Amino acid sequence: MKPTVAIIMGSNSDLPVMQQAADILTKFGVNYHLTVVSAHRTPDRMRTFALNAKNEGFKVIIAGAGGAAHLPGMVAAYTTLPVIGVPVKSSNSIDGWDSILSILQMPNGVPVATVALNAAKNAGILAAQILATYDETLATTLASYKAEMENDVLKMAEGMG
Amino acid sequence: MKPTVAIIMGSNSDLPVMQQAADILTKFGVNYHLTVVSAHRTPDRMRTFALNAKNEGFKVIIAGAGGAAHLPGMVAAYTTLPVIGVPVKSSNSIDGWDSILSILQMPNGVPVATVALNAAKNAGILAAQILATYDETLATTLASYKAEMENDVLKMAEGMG
Amino acid sequence: MKPTVAIIMGSNSDLPVMQQAADILTKFGVNYHLTVVSAHRTPDRMRTFALNAKNEGFKVIIAGAGGAAHLPGMVAAYTTLPVIGVPVKSSNSIDGWDSILSILQMPNGVPVATVALNAAKNAGILAAQILATYDETLATTLASYKAEMENDVLKMAEGMG
Amino acid sequence: MKPTVAIIMGSNSDLPVMQQAADILTKFGVNYHLTVVSAHRTPDRMRTFALNAKNEGFKVIIAGAGGAAHLPGMVAAYTTLPVIGVPVKSSNSIDGWDSILSILQMPNGVPVATVALNAAKNAGILAAQILATYDETLATTLASYKAEMENDVLKMAEGMG
Amino acid sequence: MKPTVAIIMGSNSDLPVMQQAADILTKFGVNYHLTVVSAHRTPDRMRTFALNAKNEGFKVIIAGAGGAAHLPGMVAAYTTLPVIGVPVKSSNSIDGWDSILSILQMPNGVPVATVALNAAKNAGILAAQILATYDETLATTLASYKAEMENDVLKMAEGMG
Amino acid sequence: MKPTVAIIMGSNSDLPVMQQAADILTKFGVNYHLTVVSAHRTPDRMRTFALNAKNEGFKVIIAGAGGAAHLPGMVAAYTTLPVIGVPVKSSNSIDGWDSILSILQMPNGVPVATVALNAAKNAGILAAQILATYDETLATTLASYKAEMENDVLKMAEGMG
Amino acid sequence: MKPTVAIIMGSNSDLPVMQQAADILTKFGVNYHLTVVSAHRTPDRMRTFALNAKNEGFKVIIAGAGGAAHLPGMVAAYTTLPVIGVPVKSSNSIDGWDSILSILQMPNGVPVATVALNAAKNAGILAAQILATYDETLATTLASYKAEMENDVLKMAEGMG
Amino acid sequence: MKPTVAIIMGSNSDLPVMQQAADILTKFGVNYHLTVVSAHRTPDRMRTFALNAKNEGFKVIIAGAGGAAHLPGMVAAYTTLPVIGVPVKSSNSIDGWDSILSILQMPNGVPVATVALNAAKNAGILAAQILATYDETLATTLASYKAEMENDVLKMAEGMG
Repeated sequence: MKPTVAIIMGSNSDLPVMQQAADILTKFGVNYHLTVVSAHRTPDRMRTFALNAKNEGFKVIIAGAGGAAHLPGMVAAYTTLPVIGVPVKSSNSIDGWDSILSILQMPNGVPVATVALNAAKNAGILAAQILATYDETLATTLASYKAEMENDVLKMAEGMG
Repeated sequence: MKPTVAIIMGSNSDLPVMQQAADILTKFGVNYHLTVVSAHRTPDRMRTFALNAKNEGFKVIIAGAGGAAHLPGMVAAYTTLPVIGVPVKSSNSIDGWDSILSILQMPNGVPVATVALNAAKNAGILAAQILATYDETLATTLASYKAEMENDVLKMAEGMG
Repeated sequence: MKPTVAIIMGSNSDLPVMQQAADILTKFGVNYHLTVVSAHRTPDRMRTFALNAKNEGFKVIIAGAGGAAHLPGMVAAYTTLPVIGVPVKSSNSIDGWDSILSILQMPNGVPVATVALNAAKNAGILAAQILATYDETLATTLASYKAEMENDVLKMAEGMG
Repeated sequence: MKPTVAIIMGSNSDLPVMQQAADILTKFGVNYHLTVVSAHRTPDRMRTFALNAKNEGFKVIIAGAGGAAHLPGMVAAYTTLPVIGVPVKSSNSIDGWDSILSILQMPNGVPVATVALNAAKNAGILAAQILATYDETLATTLASYKAEMENDVLKMAEGMG
Repeated sequence: MKPTVAIIMGSNSDLPVMQQAADILTKFGVNYHLTVVSAHRTPDRMRTFALNAKNEGFKVIIAGAGGAAHLPGMVAAYTTLPVIGVPVKSSNSIDGWDSILSILQMPNGVPVATVALNAAKNAGILAAQILATYDETLATTLASYKAEMENDVLKMAEGMG
Repeated sequence: MKPTVAIIMGSNSDLPVMQQAADILTKFGVNYHLTVVSAHRTPDRMRTFALNAKNEGFKVIIAGAGGAAHLPGMVAAYTTLPVIGVPVKSSNSIDGWDSILSILQMPNGVPVATVALNAAKNAGILAAQILATYDETLATTLASYKAEMENDVLKMAEGMG
Repeated sequence: MKPTVAIIMGSNSDLPVMQQAADILTKFGVNYHLTVVSAHRTPDRMRTFALNAKNEGFKVIIAGAGGAAHLPGMVAAYTTLPVIGVPVKSSNSIDGWDSILSILQMPNGVPVATVALNAAKNAGILAAQILATYDETLATTLASYKAEMENDVLKMAEGMG
Repeated sequence: MKPTVAIIMGSNSDLPVMQQAADILTKFGVNYHLTVVSAHRTPDRMRTFALNAKNEGFKVIIAGAGGAAHLPGMVAAYTTLPVIGVPVKSSNSIDGWDSILSILQMPNGVPVATVALNAAKNAGILAAQILATYDETLATTLASYKAEMENDVLKMAEGMG
């Protein structure tokens, strides 16, 4: 089956963070395509990727970047697909503030769905939630995942007391 | 037709901001339901709303709040629907930082799709983008909107030169 | 004797910090109950806990959480007991700013008594101070603790000079 | 009846904010004493006030101050009563950050129960919650107040649609 | 004579700030071209502009933008000309922090010469300084401007007494 | 000779930082007295120290503290001697911001001469500069120290080539 | 009598703030000289001023500046006199943070005695405290001023109660 | 050939960062001169350097400094050459914020071309871009470097997929 989620990042140094989006999608049975696309070093590759994304069959794009992070916003400029932005606390970031503000504070007209700093796992879950709006099987998977998380906490609580 | 987008906010003082989400959805021909739900003053109303949202036919929830803004995250705790959070720069907010961080920095497992400070319009567009992943007519509407924005800028440029 | 202070936290990863609240209460001879309650992963457990807390005999609740920390504020939404919030500098926190602002900046009507970042020990002392408003024995214990701290500093001073 | 809550502030320019603590206590039927005590300009008045507060019959102290706000913490140094700190966004404050951090970040041993910026109303409610731990009538009043707030939101919701 | 400096901005709402770059260049006798180019609403116009800028005869590009300001950095991705970035404190900006960090914190390989918040005048001066590295007449003009500023301060000092 | 500079700190954990004030004063031949005085744990010791400081022969007080750092400001409340505040980045500090703002942002009437974070060495130099306003020998020593620093940089420059 | 305090500022737009230093010195009977010296526009005037300050009879220098405020630190580089820095919240400042950090965070060897944002009045008081270390008459004046401030607060307190 | 770029820094502790400017210039075949110049410890050396820089044949100056970083701005005060400022996250810096704001927020009239925190490599590239405005060979080298970076990303992408 063709992947419905694209996971892109500005550099392979972002992979340890962004792999968590891939892992949770695998757990949910969602196909994804993961690659490196740099807004600043490969702007035309980014443009081509974004312009073709819908026709390639992608329904959601997850884009992670650090510092002056332009990748999520620029991809959003070129596509009408929902773009999820992951601010990465990269080595050149100021405690993550630059990554967060560069991704979050998009002007009216071009939104990026921003998740927490380094929260690629949540980006994966959000992508699945978007797909699940029209996929009841996936919605059920997500409900099970919620129940699983609840059980983990209940076990912690038992372990304490 | 039943509304597919719910727009909720912590107080009617957030309405001037959140109305922008409603307006853009109207422009896109997307039905919405708009109401007040307070996490802190009506926690059970919030819980009931969130638990029933999927069965009510909602596919996306837009939640706006200011200060220690718990509404988007707590609604996300109760539903598997995608939740879009709008940090509102309310009168009791510290330049919006509290609203942003309270909504954005959700723990792993429970994402909130956060947009820029006061960017309810972008929340509406993002909701439409999510719906459009399985609705080609809406996708075409969004593409037209992008073209419209482009034309506006081109006209500005002409006006300058 | 039934515990009068509940110490709850969002995850057992918060235990090293929150244990300090327990330890100081033990020193003061105050009974406590310590457990894990997650606002985002076990919202109904949280709700039940908070709704029953007063009837269970608790007089003060200490709640610690990190990142977008909704636990203290949401418990406060469900109870009239005083809730002491401990912002935890968890691994997903931005230097603690998100934890602090999410707990501190509660809207009018629903206060959370916030202490310093990671200051679970102070949360324990504050809980004891609250109980001591109607318990002269405990008030005397607290006065002795103050004297003890003073002596520790005087010994430091002697050691220097 | 002697007042059980003391409301103190560093200057009468803080009165418009701090009056809100007084007003909500009046609504709850709690007696208070309100006055000006400056840590920096009247340090001995502050010391005397704090040392005598318990014997005067006070059970809770609410202290508001702005900028490098030392009043709440220094009063807490001199008494075992619970001290509620209100960071005031005074004219000489840097957007309130100095007021908040000066009050919140107390060292281990001397807690201050900090509320949101300018949230004197919440300070009053918290004081009432502390008194209510041993006063069932007041606890009932607080429960009614919670219900009242809930109704206000429900009316807002009805008004919308 | 063909203009050697391009002044671009994301929206005509940035014009009151960016006009100051134009005005100082006029004073220095440097030709410029000023227009609107939006990274997010007209990404292809931006790309074409940046790819052609050198061949059009531009030697320096001044780009102003606010919020998640991607224009300076994306133009720099497409050209080897020096790009001067002006962070604009636009209405959707968080006190200018987002504008500054989005422009300043560019990754290795793609610099943007960032000036102070709203400092379009300094951007104009910096552009002239760059051109003056190979234009002695302009260098002399800049030296005169420095002398003029010095005289202004000396007159202020005299006026004080 | 009686010491003219008092160096005080909130805890002996601040000693590694504050010792640098002592060391530079020793180098300058200025006598000092170093001890622990806690604003929060020994408020009366602080008061007595501050009220007597002038009569004890001190001419300058250096006070270091971290977190909600009230020591410098409260000492300044009790004395007319110049007080130099050293914000210490202690373990409970939020990257030093709380220490800085608690010391720097004193209200009108009660100044604290604040130096950089952890800059106890500069506090010592500033104390010497204050004493040197009426001590030409010390002024000459300070001028020599300036020359020494200049030479160190010139040697660095030579070492580079 | 020759002035012992120099009050300098980067621009006459800083005068409304810096005049407060002059006013309090007048009240204390301390002679001052007030003028404009810009680090960036008149660097040689600044250098000459700083190199000659001691010989001119000045004992303390008060320097106010905003934005990237280099005046206090650069004057301190050229003199061994104590330099008091006043961070000014000028129109080009980011809420004062740039002014504060540019003045406060001086490297080891070259201290600047920094006061609160816009706190030129406190700079004047601090200058007087420095002069008073060897001037008992002035020390008595400062003690009276402290008493005066205390009385003002006591009157406020009476007015409330 | 005489060097056209000067690389200066406040201390040799900044060398590990600033060497990256030198290395990229070497790669581009641009001659540079690297040395230590401290604004605070060798203000006259700085002045002489800046006043002579143009006559020495320099066309661009790169200046790196940390904390209250005055070197780039003060050099810019003395020369009409373009000055590139590199904020260094030195040991005495508050997460780099002081370095950034002290360099970036220059007043109108005296710009500093600021690059990202620790981004000396980008300072070197920017210097080359400035020189390349009148040097087609260097412009071609820069274009090749851009192509090289693009290829590096394309190889990363191949390696992933």
